Amino acid sequence: MKNIDFTNVNITGGFWYNRQEINAKTTAQAIYDKFSETGRFDALKHDWTNGMPNKPHIFWDSDIAKWIEGVAYILEKNDMPDLEEICDNAIDLIEKNQADDGYFNSYFQVVEKDKRFTNRDWHELYCLGHLIEAALAYKHATGKDKLLNCCLRYVDLVYRIFLVEDSAAFHTPGHEEIELALVKLWHETHDARHLELAKHFIDKRGVQKEVPEDYWCNDAYFQSHLPVREQKTAEGHSVRAVYLYSGMADIAFETGDKTLLDACKVLLDDIIEHKLYITGGIGQSSVGEAFTVPFDLPNSTAYTETCAGIGLIYFASRMQKFFVDSRYGDLIERILYNGLISGVSLDGRAFFYENPLEILHAERERNVSVPRQNPRFPATRRSEVFSCSCCPPNFLRLIASLGNYICSVDDDNIYLHQYISSSIKVDDEILLSQKTDYPNNGRVEIIVKNAKNKTINLRIPAYTKNNYSVLVDGGKDTEEVENGYHSIKCKSDLTMIILDFDVTPKLNFSSPDVWGNANTVAVTAGPVVYCAESIDNVENLHSLYIPENFEYSLSTDEELDVPTIQINGKISVKSFDGLYGQSRKFEDALIRLIPYYAFANREECDMLIWLNIL
Amino acid sequence: MKNIDFTNVNITGGFWYNRQEINAKTTAQAIYDKFSETGRFDALKHDWTNGMPNKPHIFWDSDIAKWIEGVAYILEKNDMPDLEEICDNAIDLIEKNQADDGYFNSYFQVVEKDKRFTNRDWHELYCLGHLIEAALAYKHATGKDKLLNCCLRYVDLVYRIFLVEDSAAFHTPGHEEIELALVKLWHETHDARHLELAKHFIDKRGVQKEVPEDYWCNDAYFQSHLPVREQKTAEGHSVRAVYLYSGMADIAFETGDKTLLDACKVLLDDIIEHKLYITGGIGQSSVGEAFTVPFDLPNSTAYTETCAGIGLIYFASRMQKFFVDSRYGDLIERILYNGLISGVSLDGRAFFYENPLEILHAERERNVSVPRQNPRFPATRRSEVFSCSCCPPNFLRLIASLGNYICSVDDDNIYLHQYISSSIKVDDEILLSQKTDYPNNGRVEIIVKNAKNKTINLRIPAYTKNNYSVLVDGGKDTEEVENGYHSIKCKSDLTMIILDFDVTPKLNFSSPDVWGNANTVAVTAGPVVYCAESIDNVENLHSLYIPENFEYSLSTDEELDVPTIQINGKISVKSFDGLYGQSRKFEDALIRLIPYYAFANREECDMLIWLNIL
Repeated sequence: MKNIDFTNVNITGGFWYNRQEINAKTTAQAIYDKFSETGRFDALKHDWTNGMPNKPHIFWDSDIAKWIEGVAYILEKNDMPDLEEICDNAIDLIEKNQADDGYFNSYFQVVEKDKRFTNRDWHELYCLGHLIEAALAYKHATGKDKLLNCCLRYVDLVYRIFLVEDSAAFHTPGHEEIELALVKLWHETHDARHLELAKHFIDKRGVQKEVPEDYWCNDAYFQSHLPVREQKTAEGHSVRAVYLYSGMADIAFETGDKTLLDACKVLLDDIIEHKLYITGGIGQSSVGEAFTVPFDLPNSTAYTETCAGIGLIYFASRMQKFFVDSRYGDLIERILYNGLISGVSLDGRAFFYENPLEILHAERERNVSVPRQNPRFPATRRSEVFSCSCCPPNFLRLIASLGNYICSVDDDNIYLHQYISSSIKVDDEILLSQKTDYPNNGRVEIIVKNAKNKTINLRIPAYTKNNYSVLVDGGKDTEEVENGYHSIKCKSDLTMIILDFDVTPKLNFSSPDVWGNANTVAVTAGPVVYCAESIDNVENLHSLYIPENFEYSLSTDEELDVPTIQINGKISVKSFDGLYGQSRKFEDALIRLIPYYAFANREECDMLIWLNIL
Repeated sequence: MKNIDFTNVNITGGFWYNRQEINAKTTAQAIYDKFSETGRFDALKHDWTNGMPNKPHIFWDSDIAKWIEGVAYILEKNDMPDLEEICDNAIDLIEKNQADDGYFNSYFQVVEKDKRFTNRDWHELYCLGHLIEAALAYKHATGKDKLLNCCLRYVDLVYRIFLVEDSAAFHTPGHEEIELALVKLWHETHDARHLELAKHFIDKRGVQKEVPEDYWCNDAYFQSHLPVREQKTAEGHSVRAVYLYSGMADIAFETGDKTLLDACKVLLDDIIEHKLYITGGIGQSSVGEAFTVPFDLPNSTAYTETCAGIGLIYFASRMQKFFVDSRYGDLIERILYNGLISGVSLDGRAFFYENPLEILHAERERNVSVPRQNPRFPATRRSEVFSCSCCPPNFLRLIASLGNYICSVDDDNIYLHQYISSSIKVDDEILLSQKTDYPNNGRVEIIVKNAKNKTINLRIPAYTKNNYSVLVDGGKDTEEVENGYHSIKCKSDLTMIILDFDVTPKLNFSSPDVWGNANTVAVTAGPVVYCAESIDNVENLHSLYIPENFEYSLSTDEELDVPTIQINGKISVKSFDGLYGQSRKFEDALIRLIPYYAFANREECDMLIWLNIL
């Protein structure tokens, strides 16, 4: 199976059209402005010296690279000469300052010149990985190959150092990313060394101990506690983990290595079954930005980095090529509508690094007499830039290339994974178009042209259960769902399908294993998770209760321009003196919910997804 | 009103008789053995030198003092020459090694000889306070005044240094305790300087900043953030806080200082209304062993030190002298049957410093890839000794002097606060005796002799609500309850009262403000809080649900010899794949509960008080 590339997909309207508009028109420039202000672009000049402001950082090159990549994807569909000029200038500086031997790094060529490839955790290969992805994207969008040529020279050096000489102080990257980038590069170059180098980094990982004794974290943090094929559980830094797993899936796909594929499947199952927030977030702890233990899904301290959600989309979309299994499309949809877009403000200018599932101000300054030891909690407001600004440009490139995740094909089948108004050039003949107000409305109109005898496989989201209908050329289709897909054989060159999913509000329960969510529910409408903010409700959101048979009404928040759900709920009120008593008392309360992705767009307040069930 | 002293109270049977037996026969010796092994008694020899094991610690004198005090209380009722000899030997060493100027401290006379009174947080005055309490107790029990005379010499020195010369590096103690001890001393000596010194430490507290800039905690940790009369909220280290408040109440009682009494009332109200666990535990955070913010009552990280519970009994029993208010007796009862005795194993040999309300093993090693940063949780097993062993001897003295908290009197009234089988010499004429299997049974038989025309005031526990009966001389008494007390005027010289409280299992809810306990209940029977342990139930205690209209049976655990409650409850079982779904499914489950005080007396497992309500 192969995924249809976003360059063959035009998003034509609705929810994601608006998001892409904001992404191209506002977010790209907003990130540039902040990166420029903070010296990230100037760092490419390699003229920083001690005492100057804006000392370059080891991962700044990757920030620039992701931004260029995102802009390249925007340029595929838009003529934006100002952004292109910024890219050209940055690339000129990269070319100018690349070392004679091919090395390029705006930190290690400027700040610590003698530290090249001496510390595994210093992100050099990670930065190169992002530069490769940017170079490929930029060449495809503009035809300009200057950055790609720089990367090729640098990859030659890396091949020599890591594969021929084994002369670096380490053997595999501390922050994975270059693996998947090298596979992409190989698709462009067909240079066998590029695939070989990617495979080398995968194969050597975890084969020997690479973390010094007494280091602040252990090998699991870097996913190098075991050879990758022996890893059964998702461990450590969650962004690094899913980048690695994506690279592993790429190598499995290109080489047919079933042992790698098996590992990928087990790892993704571990995430889905044990370590995934309802928002699609992963990385339960800020300590190591890491996966923790199964079913440990704390809400107010959830780390759930935006980048980890993006990486999980990468991983799941790769797995979607191997297996017809709607869990992967469901997972991508869960991330897209929740933990991904919660990472950016509705105006496209400010970002969350972490995406907690609860904000409870009262607990944040609990150590009143030892304030310095107050616990760490995620930020409650999005920020225009932060020192580790990996997420904003990652978001930029994901949204700009969203078309990648909609459709895939094999010889006889077309698989439609995501319902997004779009026209899709499936191949030279087949055209597929969708028209929908999804997720606000469950109706999706699909027209498939020139696909006679092909089978169209439509993902039936798990949330809709059996509450959906499929009309094919006006007649009801009652085919059984298999592996989460509803299959329709096209009988002519024009097939018209009307899907209708149940996107009315539903209560969601956590598995009983998730101790922290016992006796609570999360409200969803279609794929969208809703939350309560204090500003719309009461200060103490834990006093609200949703009846199991709840009545509701739908509305729109004029200020936020998002749908809202009003639930006829209850509020627990005090019925005794002191802290403990033998009764509880409820009064009626209208509980007003907004989509989780829209939280923290007004004044600062508490927020809660998992509300008490009555 | 004055509290009847335990020397006039004999506990004659039932729950506390057994506890006092174990305390006298096992616990006193067990603590001695461990204190001896760890060098605490040898430290009194003042012969430790560098390189020797068991380096003395700044608070070891207080450990010895509390042990002597506890033994003295035991000696009041028991002939135990072995224990008395140990005390005599220890006291001989103290006398022998007391400095010429009266100073005595086994750390600062031996280890850091030039550091006397240089650091407010080094517990010198705290140790002296405990030595004074021990000296008074030991003189009363044995007639021997050697330790008292040592203390008087030391107090003379402290009076000169702190009150006359103001020559120490600080003005008030970092760890309060000496204040209440000095008031006790004044009762013995009638030396006005002793009351003056106590008042001095109270009055000067918080008047000037005593915490250096950049110290690890702020003034609130030491309750010196404000002059004590201006303090409205319980702050900082919880043991220190309630010792201070007890001293404030003592001074208020002796001097009639209403501003101090008002502060005490507000502070105790703050604890009862905002910061008290259902077990009577206080000190919500291990960081600073401190009070945190209102309604922040996390269960699995609760600090709730045994000593803090003891200190809160001291404070509440003092407030009981000022006000007829059953909240104070309720509070003492809550601590006695729960957070106090949870601090010792059923065999009396091992101790908890912290008394958490939940044990959830799964969350303890959540930072799998950064194990060193795993969160701090309380111990799950009682220990025979720990480096900071303040709790074991504190427990010893509290249990041995439990009779202090049963009864108080004023000119016309007798107040019966606690229902414990006992005979009480109220004054030279009046005798009151109780016979009961409380708390296992709600029936209490009371006989009052020679109290004609006095009013007997019986605390009606809040938990019993209106489900109780009072028979007076065989006739039903229907007097209204006022301030939580039921009043009976004795019409003759022999009054027979039969009380019957409802001690059947009840569900307890937290105030809606307590966010962490929403949608859960705690089961109590009379004053006893019950808990579920995994060993009796399922591994995942958060999958258990108690129906609001629950059926139950009562039984006895043969191994633990404690009552048990079996509830016909429900268990949440998985009804969907993955972590989230739109349904929940319950199956019947017998939920077996034991008294909280008996938890962790078998093999290590999870424990939970606040169970889901269905």
